[in-house]
Amino acid sequence: MSKYKSVNTAIINELKSIVGEKYVWTDPDKLEPYSHDEVMESKYKKTPEVVVLPRTAEEISKIVKLANQELIPVVPRGAGTGLACGAVAFYGGIILSTERMNQILEIDEQNLIMVTEPGVRTVEVQKAANDKGLFYAGDPCSGDSSFIGGNIATNAGGNKAVKYGTTRQQVAGIEIVTPEGDIVTLGGKLKKDSTGYCLTQLIAGSEGTLGIITKAYLKLSPLPKHEMHLLAIFPSAESAINIVPKIMHSGIIPTCVEFMDNKSVRCCEEFLEEKLPRSESGHYIIITIDGDNETVLEDQCVLIDELCTTNGGYEVLVADPNKIWKARKSFAEADRARSLILSAEDIVVPPSKITDIIKKIDDISKKYDVRIHCAAHAADGNVHAEILKENMDIEQWNKLLPLIQHEIYQYVYSLGGKLSGEHGIGYKRLDLMEEFANPVELKMMKAIKRALDPNNIMNPGKIVKV
Amino acid sequence: MSKYKSVNTAIINELKSIVGEKYVWTDPDKLEPYSHDEVMESKYKKTPEVVVLPRTAEEISKIVKLANQELIPVVPRGAGTGLACGAVAFYGGIILSTERMNQILEIDEQNLIMVTEPGVRTVEVQKAANDKGLFYAGDPCSGDSSFIGGNIATNAGGNKAVKYGTTRQQVAGIEIVTPEGDIVTLGGKLKKDSTGYCLTQLIAGSEGTLGIITKAYLKLSPLPKHEMHLLAIFPSAESAINIVPKIMHSGIIPTCVEFMDNKSVRCCEEFLEEKLPRSESGHYIIITIDGDNETVLEDQCVLIDELCTTNGGYEVLVADPNKIWKARKSFAEADRARSLILSAEDIVVPPSKITDIIKKIDDISKKYDVRIHCAAHAADGNVHAEILKENMDIEQWNKLLPLIQHEIYQYVYSLGGKLSGEHGIGYKRLDLMEEFANPVELKMMKAIKRALDPNNIMNPGKIVKV
Repeated sequence: MSKYKSVNTAIINELKSIVGEKYVWTDPDKLEPYSHDEVMESKYKKTPEVVVLPRTAEEISKIVKLANQELIPVVPRGAGTGLACGAVAFYGGIILSTERMNQILEIDEQNLIMVTEPGVRTVEVQKAANDKGLFYAGDPCSGDSSFIGGNIATNAGGNKAVKYGTTRQQVAGIEIVTPEGDIVTLGGKLKKDSTGYCLTQLIAGSEGTLGIITKAYLKLSPLPKHEMHLLAIFPSAESAINIVPKIMHSGIIPTCVEFMDNKSVRCCEEFLEEKLPRSESGHYIIITIDGDNETVLEDQCVLIDELCTTNGGYEVLVADPNKIWKARKSFAEADRARSLILSAEDIVVPPSKITDIIKKIDDISKKYDVRIHCAAHAADGNVHAEILKENMDIEQWNKLLPLIQHEIYQYVYSLGGKLSGEHGIGYKRLDLMEEFANPVELKMMKAIKRALDPNNIMNPGKIVKV
Repeated sequence: MSKYKSVNTAIINELKSIVGEKYVWTDPDKLEPYSHDEVMESKYKKTPEVVVLPRTAEEISKIVKLANQELIPVVPRGAGTGLACGAVAFYGGIILSTERMNQILEIDEQNLIMVTEPGVRTVEVQKAANDKGLFYAGDPCSGDSSFIGGNIATNAGGNKAVKYGTTRQQVAGIEIVTPEGDIVTLGGKLKKDSTGYCLTQLIAGSEGTLGIITKAYLKLSPLPKHEMHLLAIFPSAESAINIVPKIMHSGIIPTCVEFMDNKSVRCCEEFLEEKLPRSESGHYIIITIDGDNETVLEDQCVLIDELCTTNGGYEVLVADPNKIWKARKSFAEADRARSLILSAEDIVVPPSKITDIIKKIDDISKKYDVRIHCAAHAADGNVHAEILKENMDIEQWNKLLPLIQHEIYQYVYSLGGKLSGEHGIGYKRLDLMEEFANPVELKMMKAIKRALDPNNIMNPGKIVKV
């Protein structure tokens, strides 16, 4: 990777001439927040040479053309809420922050499309839709701070994916700056498109390695009139998880079906300093349903209650959404409060295999005497297993963690699962990707990366090694 | 394109050793049905050198490796129901028919996934799901004869895309043979996946130019318990089309919203020899809604009735689904009965622009004195405009058609629309693709094609010129 050049004074001056002096930062204090994402280990930090804050796609185009000419890595960055070190400049170069591109450009109520710049916070997208009686279905747990551009780049998932899909399903089109510096709109305000290869979906989830998203065309739908939240509490992880397919086959299409194991429940309770129901032994399934007809939703609640209580559940409570979602969304933060260094796995398996993987993780936790907390987007088969370092010696941790991951993912792949359901590969899972991804699939990904980014300047060292 | 070699006796013998003598055809009578798809003009026909009928992905892998070694085009083909000449061997070589790969392999009720070979008819996929109380949402008009592999390769749309999306939204994974002959599974029984580039969605819709689909993992959902069909009749195309956004913003998410202009209604009536309601002057909007709660559906019917009759509709009828869908689905056949040579355009525009494009088409029809029938998947902005040659002189037709298309698509692109909503580009729209697609997008598509198919043997001359 020594092929890259350093960012010298001449390049800094060129960058200043493109975006304005005020928006080219080299002061170490200003660079520090851009040296990491939500992953806190020092080996996953790297201070960039320069942070640039462009305002337009045209400015980005010029920066990328300059970077190609000079062989400088360009690392696009949203709010820095990533969990796979996808927006850290490990090979030096330019961090290109989209934080000034923060305008919602249009809410097209006729076509049910919102056009937005990439640096708008997810929560602002949701609110702007709601203000028009409309609904944006993307809802990652980090939505209060994450940017919509980053959501698309990592194909962020979240709590409503059960019914509405992950971020890629919310995207009708994007404008990007390509790795060669061209500006192009892919897709648009269209509901359907069979006009050649679906590049929109190739770029969505490509974590900034195939281009920089400069505009998004997001799908909206009428805002469901009602929403109800249930908390079903079970005596064991297994009984909790086993209820999920029963709900999914009942004809109800829930918005969310979340699982928290008892260790996570207690950890969140401690962190929030708020008593949670039956926290001494309860494993949680949180279910949200939405729709326009309140009677139908009430009938669905009754059905869910019956299903849970006749299948071993302690009880089903109508939940205060603020309280229960505060608990669920504090999962990662609560774990981090307990152990700043941890490894947040983002396992995805066929939904029917969740019990197997959760049992396996429990076995591994005991075998290695390491604490692992599990929460899951249960109906999606997406398990967040947080392996906590706690007070383990760092050398021991560095030795054990790869063994634990190896054991987990060997089993995950034997179940037909994969490395990441919604966080992405980034830099953090690069070695696991080389180890576990199908070699033909890897070869195809590398061929595409080389074809679209011949100088490998666009977020190098992420997703695949080329 | 002279770089390709001819299929000689030695190659025929190798093919026979791979799939068995019985499944390698060179007899002209047997080749003829493989010389065209549903497009009937002689310039869109080409007899292949050989038709091969493999049974397994392993056999296909061997065929593709042989084709790379010998530089022979390989054209994958499903049921031949395409409308863009995507499965015709214009550069000679091998037609690779998937008709023997016709088994449904598994219906996984736990994970709501059907695993199927590519040569299963769409209607059989639908029926097999229904038999288990489940639902496969893909529903192209050609579903009685089309193959599921072809549906995925062209990202077929159809009538239920309003609510459920086109075929790509139904696909959780595929097994393919790559253009270099490797076998790989992309995606699988997963509900979410952020493990690198989304190759499943790149291959879906790539019309056999980036690989051959040998297995599909299709999403299923619980079968809606009820379905209701309404026929709303309007005095003008404009008043009919204008009702569509009103329905879409009412909170109802219909399964289908179809438009047929009066000329199409009358053409279908003549073809079917069955009286259709108010056919003398009526323009049709056909609406289907589905769901589990009959009362909710009845309320929605009342709301739709009110919306239509207060917005200029003649009347709203509860429709006999067999009768009304027979009429709608006969659209293409009825047109062909009237004019064997026709050009079936597959325009897609932002839904709010449908009235504009339909008006423009009407103007163009008058300007060139040519009959154009329009039916539309109206809520999707997808307009099928069938330009009929009728008794026009063929030279005149060959001169006029490009002028008409040029005028239509200049306007379509000015509206933010594209060449194809669901039929694909194939060979038929190759020149239009070069003319109208964004040059950067084209460059990206060509780079991907070259990267994944370095010898350009996989369905050459389709989608993009490389």
